[in-house]
Amino acid sequence: MKRIYFFLITFMLCTVGFAQQALWGNSPIVSPDIHEDNTVTFRINAPKADKVQITGDFLPTQKIKTQRGEYDAPGAADLIKNDKGIWEYTTKNPLSPELYSYSFIVDDMRTMDPANVYMIRDVATVTNVFLIGGGRADLYKVNKVAHGNVSKVWYNSPTLGIDRRMTVYTPAGYEVGNKKYPVFYLLHGMGGDEDAWSELGRSAQILDNLIAQGKAKPMILVMTNGNASQEAAPGESSLGFKSPSMQLPKTMDGSFEESFPDVVNYIDKNYRTIKSKQGRAIAGLSMGGYHSLHISKQYPDMFNYVGLFSAAIMPNNNVKSAIYENFDEKIKTQFNKKPALYWIAIGNKDFLYKANKDYRDYLDKNGYKYTYYESEDGHIWKNWRIYLTEFVPMLFQ
Amino acid sequence: MKRIYFFLITFMLCTVGFAQQALWGNSPIVSPDIHEDNTVTFRINAPKADKVQITGDFLPTQKIKTQRGEYDAPGAADLIKNDKGIWEYTTKNPLSPELYSYSFIVDDMRTMDPANVYMIRDVATVTNVFLIGGGRADLYKVNKVAHGNVSKVWYNSPTLGIDRRMTVYTPAGYEVGNKKYPVFYLLHGMGGDEDAWSELGRSAQILDNLIAQGKAKPMILVMTNGNASQEAAPGESSLGFKSPSMQLPKTMDGSFEESFPDVVNYIDKNYRTIKSKQGRAIAGLSMGGYHSLHISKQYPDMFNYVGLFSAAIMPNNNVKSAIYENFDEKIKTQFNKKPALYWIAIGNKDFLYKANKDYRDYLDKNGYKYTYYESEDGHIWKNWRIYLTEFVPMLFQ
Repeated sequence: MKRIYFFLITFMLCTVGFAQQALWGNSPIVSPDIHEDNTVTFRINAPKADKVQITGDFLPTQKIKTQRGEYDAPGAADLIKNDKGIWEYTTKNPLSPELYSYSFIVDDMRTMDPANVYMIRDVATVTNVFLIGGGRADLYKVNKVAHGNVSKVWYNSPTLGIDRRMTVYTPAGYEVGNKKYPVFYLLHGMGGDEDAWSELGRSAQILDNLIAQGKAKPMILVMTNGNASQEAAPGESSLGFKSPSMQLPKTMDGSFEESFPDVVNYIDKNYRTIKSKQGRAIAGLSMGGYHSLHISKQYPDMFNYVGLFSAAIMPNNNVKSAIYENFDEKIKTQFNKKPALYWIAIGNKDFLYKANKDYRDYLDKNGYKYTYYESEDGHIWKNWRIYLTEFVPMLFQ
Repeated sequence: MKRIYFFLITFMLCTVGFAQQALWGNSPIVSPDIHEDNTVTFRINAPKADKVQITGDFLPTQKIKTQRGEYDAPGAADLIKNDKGIWEYTTKNPLSPELYSYSFIVDDMRTMDPANVYMIRDVATVTNVFLIGGGRADLYKVNKVAHGNVSKVWYNSPTLGIDRRMTVYTPAGYEVGNKKYPVFYLLHGMGGDEDAWSELGRSAQILDNLIAQGKAKPMILVMTNGNASQEAAPGESSLGFKSPSMQLPKTMDGSFEESFPDVVNYIDKNYRTIKSKQGRAIAGLSMGGYHSLHISKQYPDMFNYVGLFSAAIMPNNNVKSAIYENFDEKIKTQFNKKPALYWIAIGNKDFLYKANKDYRDYLDKNGYKYTYYESEDGHIWKNWRIYLTEFVPMLFQ
């Protein structure tokens, strides 16, 4: 057989067609361009635009006024056209190590950065992301360490009567041998799903790195979907590519808490786990913290480690569920059984700060032991990644 | 503990901030809007734009002339402003069942559809996607059937000296019992990676649906990364969020073919597999078809089923690798061992059509048995999904 080679060039002409198509004739645009001193330049080719802005969580927040009051939104900054006609913005100062999100606003239209293929969906919004390494943010990177595997796993929930999807991280080395592992159940916030912690939460990277550094015990990490009406994350269920909704039924009405033993039973049946309270932790952010609180008090023999990350605390007065009845009594039972760790973390600007303060006062008044961690800032992913890096090393020690 | 409930409203104000931020004050835009007759309306709010176009693979292709010749690129169509100031385009005719990709071009700037959170990266380009159901395209949907699990699995390749990532689908029911499963190795094209087949290829949905319909045997599906220099897909390796490149070293130089037994050994060691030729298939698209051809002839006792989907055939004359030596002799050995299926598929407009015709002539001349499947169109994902749905039912029967 004769060797023929016209493959590469023709192939590249074909596939770049969609991307280029007479749009960017010249050299490709680099954006974000992270400089050595950790200042960052963003660029976009919008030749006919009158005004281009960037909005991102690395910019100072701005106050937005609505009919319901004032709140903080990510700031915005203007790009200016450089001598090649490309719009450009460079951060005034070096950025601290962190995973950042941003979008462009071109003539009042929000758009992704066409030069950056990395985007993460959070609830119903997609933003571009980039990472400034160093310090704690090195835990968010894929480093050259042994990696655990991340699986999208379908289980049947008899309580909810549907097949449901979750994300399961098994630590490096799980496949080899017969060792039994502890399990950490990690729950997302309102509007989130089983993809949230492994995407913006960087949970697999954080676990890989902490385990590789000997700072955390190898453990299985189970990231559930806390919206009890959903089979799976948007786009991954029989609803197809339907627009994601923030207002889902059966999120904070006791349904998910009630069905949680279905998850634990599945994991204990299908993975080599330590099948006892000593080998189980549960934590979650925001609504997931609320779920963790109510699940752990409902099943006081299930979890030895509990983490409330910027948690909602109490249900709506209108909600009727056996899960939320006899609160005082159930909490008393839970704390009488002395969980190894009951950890409450929140940012000093979080809108749930007062609710958490009230809850801590309640625990203090009753002499229930917990550990408290307070950070800067509000109800944001930066904090939840920090809390995860702080919480995981305390588990199963 | 008193029930307090200011959670939901405050939370929604916080999280929608990033998305809305004084951009879209009014009702949300629906796009794509798939009508009952399968015509589709696309909408975008670009209040200050002079010209808005859509480019997508549902539009007639257009000829693009370059210095290297003429080639087909996806077509474009103009949107017009409706009476609410929203730009709109409705397809002239109902669209056939298919998974489609598209982008907007706003004043010469390519942008995603801000109303559609569903996007897939292919090589270095991200496009929005939507699906028109019906016919074969129902196989591409997540239907209410038993689902297999999809895992991102790290394995060590002693041949390449690095840890590498692959995607492994295990069929529904794999976790239960001790049954051994056949394994189908499915390889991506140039610039692709271990995410390609499970994203644009819809491989997990196709397998779920064919297995549920009794048209395919339950099997393990292994989707490797065929770029031998890469640990993992862009964004998933120690390179971080680096821009993806089409021109990777060690892609068609024999390295991946040489290292392939590392993959098979890992899978046979860590999964309940049928560890023989009878229980193994290999196929791939474009460069992955080339890999499948050369791997299956290099290891003639490894695969009983071989699929070349729009395959490149022969290496560059400059490439030196033991893998590509003694072509005629190795092919003869492979066919003398009578593979159960040697399947060649290509579109009648594919730029590799002639290379495949030459290869078929060569096989014919030597009396080597293969099956041929010719489709419409060119070197596109539509064809590769079709080939997968055709190939899988023939395996392990």
